[in-house]
Amino acid sequence: MDLVVTFIGTSASVPSAARGTSATLVSRGGRRWLVDCGEGTQRQLLRSGVGLADVDVVLLTHLHGDHFLGLPGMFKTFALRGREEPLLLVGPAGLDQLMVTLQPLIGRLPFHLEVQESGPGEVLRDDDAVIRAFHTDHGVRSLGYALVEDDRPGAFDVDAARALGVPDGPSFGVLQRGGEVTLDSGAVVRPDQVMGEARAGRVVVFSGDTRPCEATEDAARGADLLIHEATFCDEDSARALETRHTTALEAGALAARAGVRMLALTHVSTRVQPREVRREAEREFPGVIVPRDFDQVEIPFRERGEPRLIPVHERLGKGAREDAAAADDPATLGSATL
Amino acid sequence: MDLVVTFIGTSASVPSAARGTSATLVSRGGRRWLVDCGEGTQRQLLRSGVGLADVDVVLLTHLHGDHFLGLPGMFKTFALRGREEPLLLVGPAGLDQLMVTLQPLIGRLPFHLEVQESGPGEVLRDDDAVIRAFHTDHGVRSLGYALVEDDRPGAFDVDAARALGVPDGPSFGVLQRGGEVTLDSGAVVRPDQVMGEARAGRVVVFSGDTRPCEATEDAARGADLLIHEATFCDEDSARALETRHTTALEAGALAARAGVRMLALTHVSTRVQPREVRREAEREFPGVIVPRDFDQVEIPFRERGEPRLIPVHERLGKGAREDAAAADDPATLGSATL
Repeated sequence: MDLVVTFIGTSASVPSAARGTSATLVSRGGRRWLVDCGEGTQRQLLRSGVGLADVDVVLLTHLHGDHFLGLPGMFKTFALRGREEPLLLVGPAGLDQLMVTLQPLIGRLPFHLEVQESGPGEVLRDDDAVIRAFHTDHGVRSLGYALVEDDRPGAFDVDAARALGVPDGPSFGVLQRGGEVTLDSGAVVRPDQVMGEARAGRVVVFSGDTRPCEATEDAARGADLLIHEATFCDEDSARALETRHTTALEAGALAARAGVRMLALTHVSTRVQPREVRREAEREFPGVIVPRDFDQVEIPFRERGEPRLIPVHERLGKGAREDAAAADDPATLGSATL
Repeated sequence: MDLVVTFIGTSASVPSAARGTSATLVSRGGRRWLVDCGEGTQRQLLRSGVGLADVDVVLLTHLHGDHFLGLPGMFKTFALRGREEPLLLVGPAGLDQLMVTLQPLIGRLPFHLEVQESGPGEVLRDDDAVIRAFHTDHGVRSLGYALVEDDRPGAFDVDAARALGVPDGPSFGVLQRGGEVTLDSGAVVRPDQVMGEARAGRVVVFSGDTRPCEATEDAARGADLLIHEATFCDEDSARALETRHTTALEAGALAARAGVRMLALTHVSTRVQPREVRREAEREFPGVIVPRDFDQVEIPFRERGEPRLIPVHERLGKGAREDAAAADDPATLGSATL
């Protein structure tokens, strides 16, 4: 099953020409979860190449404007095109009041918007995966989120089954689903005799805005991908402490302690160069990326390989964004340049 | 004195990959007026090449979300960088209530935000120019705006002054400022003897969202630039009527009746091709442009030439937007592509 993270907005607090405010999209098996929704997110989705699909769930890490000001516009656009599927909006305590504030800006929606204030613990279950929230440390009510897939059964060992005398056919399926099979001989074959070890599900963790904290580290232990904020570099560590943010060095150290497979740093201040952010984090943890807007990370099942960065130009071509901008009207200027 | 219009967001209702929601910037002699402020405007200003300067005045044409949802984020960014200069926000009746709604999203500002509900008439005077509002027809309270420069004195005819015996020096200045000069001979020279005819000031008119209406036509009579919405083409004329918008054909006809020098069509629906919008309007009026986001129109004093479209690529280079997007982090990917 596909599991792809698209970085939709990676700037801190204010946008830059290159980076929108916070938003990250997770796509998994046709489901789409958006983590945070800064101003301009609906358009960033359009520009990203993934399109403004009907997001199923929006998870807010906290209620600062650069993480939610894109909600009214996105909801209104969903309404304009007649969306009918319900949308679940999750966030920390205070979310209900925020939605009361936003209500006059949003107006009537033709779909059901379910607003769910959450504390730590399971936020939602989606067939074979859960979203869990954990408290973070940002000086306001704030949550991190972990997408945790259920473990999958181990590989079925056909040769072992045949060697035990299990006949080809329905009995294989019984064993794969965890049942026992009684052979004509009266012998019983148990699944653990023919199935490899259960395969751990994939885990993606979002820190949101926060100081480095144990809850993030616990959630991220052995995770495939940790998306952690790195608003500042070490030279601004006092400021990071004061504003309850994390430095690149601290994020790298946390990733190393948690033993994640890949660390993606986001929420990068316009005060710092992304390459400096990366270099600093690499002093603590080698597997660091600082994605640009619209870059993706593809996370295969663990037996199939490592998480892989797909830079935006690899997907959309080097001039992708420029092309998109010009695509709808190459001839509008025409002779009318008075 | 420079007078430049930059198209910041030219889409109708919802953004597209290429076009942001409504915003237009007027720059004149160091002053900056923003007409409408859709979601993402602060970032569009950064991407446009003109930068997120401290806008002096924001004029809202009406209170639909795609025209104001960029205000909270822009104001917060101004606050974050410690702006102290006051900002005047003008809009139709209902603006005060809207600002009460937006207040929790904006928070405390370190600068004075003056909110001014306006009806038709003079909205503000800025030395040698005024902004006038007029009622439009959009089914809600809506305003158009005209920037009208004062007339400038005619050219001073040095040869004529000398022929009348006026000595070179301070007397020339007296005549240029409208005063009379008494010569040593006792003869009196009046300014009308040495000054050409007064030169009409420049006029830029913004229709906002509206049906074609007389107030717009009156305001635009002989204007240098009319920026009119053209949400639909003629084939959707019933829909234009129903939603109180204008078709390209209607906008062209209005521009022809008003005798403007240039017509810029904006607020283009994603349902139509901009080139079709232009072709249709050209059936009624030849001087039509359909600007892309970040295109500019430069309006020289009338004796110096016609309004001129400056396409974005002429200012910023063909790959400007793509370059801007990549500029801050060419090396972030590095070796960390696990």
